Amino acid sequence: MRDFTHDHRWLSINTATLRRQHGQERPLIEILDDCARHGIRAVSPWRDQVAAAGLQATGRTLRAHGFELSGYCRGGMFTAADAAGLQLARDDNLRALDEACELNAACLVLVVGALPGALQGQAAHKDIALSRQQVFDGIAALLEQARARRMPLAIEPLHPMYAADRACVNTLEQALDLCDALDPQRSGALGVAVDLYHVWWDPKLQAQIERAGRERLLAFHVCDWLTPTTDLLNDRGMMGDGVIDIRQARGWVEANGFAGYSEVEIFSHRWWALSGEQTLQTCIERHRRCV
Amino acid sequence: MRDFTHDHRWLSINTATLRRQHGQERPLIEILDDCARHGIRAVSPWRDQVAAAGLQATGRTLRAHGFELSGYCRGGMFTAADAAGLQLARDDNLRALDEACELNAACLVLVVGALPGALQGQAAHKDIALSRQQVFDGIAALLEQARARRMPLAIEPLHPMYAADRACVNTLEQALDLCDALDPQRSGALGVAVDLYHVWWDPKLQAQIERAGRERLLAFHVCDWLTPTTDLLNDRGMMGDGVIDIRQARGWVEANGFAGYSEVEIFSHRWWALSGEQTLQTCIERHRRCV
Repeated sequence: MRDFTHDHRWLSINTATLRRQHGQERPLIEILDDCARHGIRAVSPWRDQVAAAGLQATGRTLRAHGFELSGYCRGGMFTAADAAGLQLARDDNLRALDEACELNAACLVLVVGALPGALQGQAAHKDIALSRQQVFDGIAALLEQARARRMPLAIEPLHPMYAADRACVNTLEQALDLCDALDPQRSGALGVAVDLYHVWWDPKLQAQIERAGRERLLAFHVCDWLTPTTDLLNDRGMMGDGVIDIRQARGWVEANGFAGYSEVEIFSHRWWALSGEQTLQTCIERHRRCV
Repeated sequence: MRDFTHDHRWLSINTATLRRQHGQERPLIEILDDCARHGIRAVSPWRDQVAAAGLQATGRTLRAHGFELSGYCRGGMFTAADAAGLQLARDDNLRALDEACELNAACLVLVVGALPGALQGQAAHKDIALSRQQVFDGIAALLEQARARRMPLAIEPLHPMYAADRACVNTLEQALDLCDALDPQRSGALGVAVDLYHVWWDPKLQAQIERAGRERLLAFHVCDWLTPTTDLLNDRGMMGDGVIDIRQARGWVEANGFAGYSEVEIFSHRWWALSGEQTLQTCIERHRRCV
């Protein structure tokens, strides 16, 4: 297992972590400049931030700083209430794929979607099995295009508390079942993003990480689970402030071949209320001490 | 599948649903009287409510109204930071067992506990595997006493969002693994409480209900999952107000031999803000229409 205590060369910053300092949306380029100044070598930007900054300008800044992309956030949201919606989702995923290629990302992360309309407060139906079938079909179609562009797709299982409105793939086992069905040859074109916030609780976590293996472990995200958790979306904890045994889980992914970045992704009103400098320095310190 | 649309003979009221009307804690006896007046045939009371009303007085009221108990809430909380804490938990579970027998409950529901101290905001450790071992040991010890008293134990898997602070048994599969290990003969002494709020999202739900079968399906709890959910504990929805396909799931448990009550358990600031009359009438109406 790699020793992270002496430096932060394997720390990646998911740019959502620093996006809303003091309640103000910050420009992506400014976030990237901050990361570079702190010796960060990898980032994972969000599509809406890239769109606001401009794809070309983002690419230039990434290259100027020599950043790697531990992933690109995100494709997915495959589910819809009708055929037109499904087609829109497919078209949008192709654009996400092209952007991931343009930015030379390690993988395109997929948050797969759930019951259509639920995120807006009114689900179009209650048939989660139908949503799961749409996700299967959506990934199958996207995978062909992704293979052609040599861009790996990383299915991110989301915590079951998001099963209604954000993602109906909710365990690592379920994500790996999709991988086995769609890429039985374990080509590396399809795998998983293991975000500990979403999967830490799973009694089958270690077994499923072993099942995933090197070819399927495409990304590793960290933050912490707070007790109490006061908001389902934006109360993620800084590593070390919660109950997740992060180092144990990192040991499991590394024992099974993962050798990439540890990506910090924290959605938190608490950390967004502080300065970017403070949040970023704390990420670095906790990466050494708790990851 | 039974037809619930014409009456509510298979409706049970978990007394937590009516415990805090208009923000005031209501006496259990008053809740029981209300239920009797509305033709409810079964209830599931909470231990703290019974303790406040008195065990003997509760028993007399239950018998006077001819109530069945679809379950008794609850035993469990087996985990602790030290040996003294483990012993306290065991002693308390024996008392819960005696109360369940005294009240002639169909089963003692077990919410198993999680990381000790987490519910109070500071976990004593992060070793969820250790907690799971303590749960295994605690159920094993309690089961001997429960067998002797002929009181079935129903393990209730709780939603993964409670894995840190309330229950480290988080899927039906995990609960059934415990049952298989501790009661391989499927004697009926150990089974599960299927609460749809906790398990609705599970891609293996139907398969695990089939695995459970008649001997292990000891209780069936309903409410609904709201989008958005604004509080991790007290924002459960009234049946029909959320995204759970309740009737489909009831079909699955009935197809596998469950023929008991459908127990309504709603923790909700929203419903507690209304009158008991309004909440109870709505439970009855939704039981007919949505369960």
